[in-house]
Amino acid sequence: MKKIVIIGGGFAGLNAAKGLGNCEDAEVLLIDRSNYHLFQPLLYQVAMAGLSPAEIAVPLRSILSRYKNIRILQGEALGVNPDEKYVTTTIGRFDYDYLILACGAFHTYFGNEQWEPHAPGLKTLEQATEIRRRVLSAFEQAEAEPDTEIMSRHLTFIIVGGGPTGVELAGALGELSRHTLAKDFKNIDPTLARVILIEAGPRILPSFSEKLTRKAARSLEYLGVEVWTNKRVTLVDDTGIEIGKEKLLATTVIWAAGIRAAKFLTGVAVDTDPQGRVIVLPDLSLKGHPEIFVAGDQARLSDGKGKPLPGIAPVAQQQGEYLARSICGNIRGEIGKPFQYKDRGQLATIGRSRAVLEYGWLQLSGFPAWFMWVVIHIYFLIGFQNRLFVFLRWASSYLSFSRGARLVVNKTWRLYPDEEEKEKK
Amino acid sequence: MKKIVIIGGGFAGLNAAKGLGNCEDAEVLLIDRSNYHLFQPLLYQVAMAGLSPAEIAVPLRSILSRYKNIRILQGEALGVNPDEKYVTTTIGRFDYDYLILACGAFHTYFGNEQWEPHAPGLKTLEQATEIRRRVLSAFEQAEAEPDTEIMSRHLTFIIVGGGPTGVELAGALGELSRHTLAKDFKNIDPTLARVILIEAGPRILPSFSEKLTRKAARSLEYLGVEVWTNKRVTLVDDTGIEIGKEKLLATTVIWAAGIRAAKFLTGVAVDTDPQGRVIVLPDLSLKGHPEIFVAGDQARLSDGKGKPLPGIAPVAQQQGEYLARSICGNIRGEIGKPFQYKDRGQLATIGRSRAVLEYGWLQLSGFPAWFMWVVIHIYFLIGFQNRLFVFLRWASSYLSFSRGARLVVNKTWRLYPDEEEKEKK
Repeated sequence: MKKIVIIGGGFAGLNAAKGLGNCEDAEVLLIDRSNYHLFQPLLYQVAMAGLSPAEIAVPLRSILSRYKNIRILQGEALGVNPDEKYVTTTIGRFDYDYLILACGAFHTYFGNEQWEPHAPGLKTLEQATEIRRRVLSAFEQAEAEPDTEIMSRHLTFIIVGGGPTGVELAGALGELSRHTLAKDFKNIDPTLARVILIEAGPRILPSFSEKLTRKAARSLEYLGVEVWTNKRVTLVDDTGIEIGKEKLLATTVIWAAGIRAAKFLTGVAVDTDPQGRVIVLPDLSLKGHPEIFVAGDQARLSDGKGKPLPGIAPVAQQQGEYLARSICGNIRGEIGKPFQYKDRGQLATIGRSRAVLEYGWLQLSGFPAWFMWVVIHIYFLIGFQNRLFVFLRWASSYLSFSRGARLVVNKTWRLYPDEEEKEKK
Repeated sequence: MKKIVIIGGGFAGLNAAKGLGNCEDAEVLLIDRSNYHLFQPLLYQVAMAGLSPAEIAVPLRSILSRYKNIRILQGEALGVNPDEKYVTTTIGRFDYDYLILACGAFHTYFGNEQWEPHAPGLKTLEQATEIRRRVLSAFEQAEAEPDTEIMSRHLTFIIVGGGPTGVELAGALGELSRHTLAKDFKNIDPTLARVILIEAGPRILPSFSEKLTRKAARSLEYLGVEVWTNKRVTLVDDTGIEIGKEKLLATTVIWAAGIRAAKFLTGVAVDTDPQGRVIVLPDLSLKGHPEIFVAGDQARLSDGKGKPLPGIAPVAQQQGEYLARSICGNIRGEIGKPFQYKDRGQLATIGRSRAVLEYGWLQLSGFPAWFMWVVIHIYFLIGFQNRLFVFLRWASSYLSFSRGARLVVNKTWRLYPDEEEKEKK
């Protein structure tokens, strides 16, 4: 029996574990900081009160309970000793024959981490519910506010970053104010809320074609979203943001502008790219350590045309499946092939019935793209244990215009807590 | 138009608002600290990972959006000026012609509030998810623990207080470890978890008949719960509890032992009973202030036989409905009748298919009582706006053995936060 330790239960780690669950010669240990697998592509729906946390997060134990050779522990990996082949974690030291690192990525403020309290990012469930709390509270505060100037500040929502996350947040927020909340307030008119999407570059969704960028911008504007391009945010504080000398007052600012790979373990030197992703060999292993692999958002691998593979779920999923096959083959003495990504295209949803989709030569927008999005998400959800219930709940929330998830709950959510708060934990 | 201000959106406040929503001469303002109505009888299900927060909490705005004469604000009431007839709140000052106070109750440690960090109570959604986090984390910690002594401490769960909340928590926790989690762990056997229900008095469920107490205790024992009576907890700290000189080590302690009515507003003198409930006249008004009413858990009214009405949902609901009728009648110049409680009996569920029920001469236990419990909860849920979706989700969670809600999320939850934490908020 060979010991395989997997760090991280995201799309890469989970799919590696599933694959190795069917490998007779493997004994798998999966370690994650959380006790659940998060369906990150729908995280923006939790932030926008469209879905509940439990609808996009499933306990790792229940997904993997059928596999007798998989053990799951909740903890955080700290370091690795590649010579003696063990990892150190917050819950002890574990030996491995093969090690898979799939710790994902976090948002970054490019050195302005002090902006976080004023502009949460969107990578964890805690952050999603914090954003939901802020958005819903802003409408509540506006309803109670007699001063029209302060009221309009409460009704101004700024989203920084025009990538898929920023676009999906802006679209959902436009719809939340236009449809879901429209009838609920007596003093304010939620449809008058300003939703501003700010992008530093010349266009939103830069990874898509220019045509789809234009279509996406039009769809957003239809939902009342203002799209500002070529504007770089230079300051975020508790009153709003600054773009150079221009001040924009807003109660709610959401950060969707920067991604940085999770820190690598101590104990082994790795080459990283500017986003902190570990540069791996074509079989996802580390140079000089053929038994250590990095997958998902934490890895940087070229797509064969010189561009790095994007940090999206299909890449992570395929890499996880690939690693399971290649490690199981390696145990049996087979010689592996390099990882090859089957392009699944890219997608961004805008509100409840529009999207943009690019798949090779195929470019779709509007309702057809949205329909494809639904089908693809159902396909992914099918991988879950309780697929029927998860899907039924998700569909019912979606069809009912999701009144149920609009709860303002108190949470800690910070990614860079004060020293004091850390001590408390 | 008469102005009616309602403080609190629980069963009393919500039903008063609904009733007054159909009263032509009333202009209603409902103020609550949360933006949702909480279905408190199922709160223990959230704490035990059986339901998600959104399944038992519905935004007040969506429940009441059809009523044109109801305005809703999120805020906290502070004081009242009965002479000039206005209330002061965190979001401003509001005039009233009639004032309804329905602020509910909280848990209390009888002067030992320093126990709270070690033994959370169960009155709010935040507390429920904190308890869920602790219970699930304890199993996770046990799974990773090599030392069997520490492991058994992680697998010891203490519930202090043998009233309905304590009994329901203990039953659900017994079932969680015996059924839901049974297959998920490889290192520990969750069915070996110790669940201990501690009651200071001579028997659990003292408000029920002795026969039902015995049946409930037997049902609990069937689920592996140890029932300890005549034991008074004298200390709670981060290692467990003390009962006199006896020390019991446990990672998880839950407090279900004491209830205290919410603090009354400043500005008017009221008589309270030892639990802090305001003593009201038979029409629920305050002596000397016929236009100020107190309802629900915050009020103390005799049941006509010398005993105070219990702090349960049916009492609060009927009082809310009564106040709506009587205030609307009063506006039209009608003379009101005193409040009369139609006894709906009392109920406590034990696990997934047992309960005890007492309704006048009728005493049920086991499955028949549990079936009644389901029917009664469906009846209550019908009052919700999206009743179909709420019910479908609830049923699906229940039937699927609720794997979905088992998320460990980080939250603030304390009722008595440190000064430092208060400042941060």
